[in-house]
Amino acid sequence: MTEVPPPAIVLVRPQLAQNIGKAARAMLNFGLTDLRLVSPRDGWPNPDAGPAASGADIVLQNAKLFENVADAVADCAHVYATTVRKRGVTKPVVRPDEAAIAIRSEPGGSAILFGPERSGLATDDVAVARTILTVPINPEFGSLNLAQAVILVAYEWSKGAGLSQPPVTDLGTPASQEELDGMIGQLDAMLEGVGYFFPPDRAPTVKRTLRTLLTKPGWNAQEVRTLRGVLSAIDRPRGPQRAEASTRNASKRSNS
Amino acid sequence: MTEVPPPAIVLVRPQLAQNIGKAARAMLNFGLTDLRLVSPRDGWPNPDAGPAASGADIVLQNAKLFENVADAVADCAHVYATTVRKRGVTKPVVRPDEAAIAIRSEPGGSAILFGPERSGLATDDVAVARTILTVPINPEFGSLNLAQAVILVAYEWSKGAGLSQPPVTDLGTPASQEELDGMIGQLDAMLEGVGYFFPPDRAPTVKRTLRTLLTKPGWNAQEVRTLRGVLSAIDRPRGPQRAEASTRNASKRSNS
Repeated sequence: MTEVPPPAIVLVRPQLAQNIGKAARAMLNFGLTDLRLVSPRDGWPNPDAGPAASGADIVLQNAKLFENVADAVADCAHVYATTVRKRGVTKPVVRPDEAAIAIRSEPGGSAILFGPERSGLATDDVAVARTILTVPINPEFGSLNLAQAVILVAYEWSKGAGLSQPPVTDLGTPASQEELDGMIGQLDAMLEGVGYFFPPDRAPTVKRTLRTLLTKPGWNAQEVRTLRGVLSAIDRPRGPQRAEASTRNASKRSNS
Repeated sequence: MTEVPPPAIVLVRPQLAQNIGKAARAMLNFGLTDLRLVSPRDGWPNPDAGPAASGADIVLQNAKLFENVADAVADCAHVYATTVRKRGVTKPVVRPDEAAIAIRSEPGGSAILFGPERSGLATDDVAVARTILTVPINPEFGSLNLAQAVILVAYEWSKGAGLSQPPVTDLGTPASQEELDGMIGQLDAMLEGVGYFFPPDRAPTVKRTLRTLLTKPGWNAQEVRTLRGVLSAIDRPRGPQRAEASTRNASKRSNS
């Protein structure tokens, strides 16, 4: 049986380097070391992070820096978006303990997204994830800070760290986020070419709806390849007016 | 059955008022409000506590001040001493989740002691308790601060408290088999039109693969309508050679 790797903790646009240090400390307490930073507001590395880490320097030193969420989770098969507030998205919502169990039983790496201190994850960040992770909290006083949210998730994950797990069902290698993004990019490009996104100002919303739909199931890597074959087949017999659209969308795709 | 009261959180000789504020915040997040302070180093009340509580002022205002641990827990039937390190005392040791279950099932009030930031509980404080509460932690890096220890204990307690659960996601009306079949028929028709099923004798196998893939996720009815809109959009701008295929496939679809 393959060992399921511990989840990556992805801090999306964190504001204070001090909070990055505190999150690193929270992680290492419970055995997590894979810290990923997406566009920290004050740059990285940052001298304010170290003292707040209280000795968890190894986590900070190995932290990886990314420009966007998609890049940060490209190698992960399962992406969780941590939100406190209810969102108008139709994705499964799990508690930290449920997420921990799922992460331990799902082959392929997992990533857990945490948003900026003040605002939390943006809707577009949440759209990248397949699952929402929410800490059930006092409805009259919900005020978890970043490191506290990280520590609760890490703590729940650590509970199973030494226990024997039931055998992992072989559902095929899960599609990585990158593979899914590639497929969604291909479909977006095709749909742009045929004028599906109309009116243009609704395009982001419609794309998000499609993404939510297409990231729902948990296809494996082979299935995503099959679907891309389908899309290519449908796309093939187009006339020359499609060439321009394909080029436009290819550049768009690389930004996704 | 009598309602078992939430446990009291007892901070024994806390050093920084800021940490008292943070502990109050951690508590209220998970529905705990009974804060008791034993000889805070810098006195009480203390203006540094309020800002760190981030709005949990009610907990600070109602905090009770005591001179020693025995007085602080005099009205409690069950006292837990939180320690990170193993102590040379012969008392039962429980994890936060075990303590939470015990506290909920034990009639009479419970109190949980937390020691000063730097040193933790003194041996005499631990001696007052009947049970040791220890958070299982990375043996190579144990560095929980006071508010973090409080939040983990409060979080575990809250699991049984009937606090707000994560919102039940409205995943929409599940798509019926007929709706799914209609969508798969539409895709099959499109793919037949573009010669995707080649060689023809493999068509049943390939169609079965696609069906397995597309029936995996559990899309809701609205999502199937969305996907069909996508397929129609992709199918629309075809030339006249497609008309014949569409006719052929329309009849096929009605058989599916």
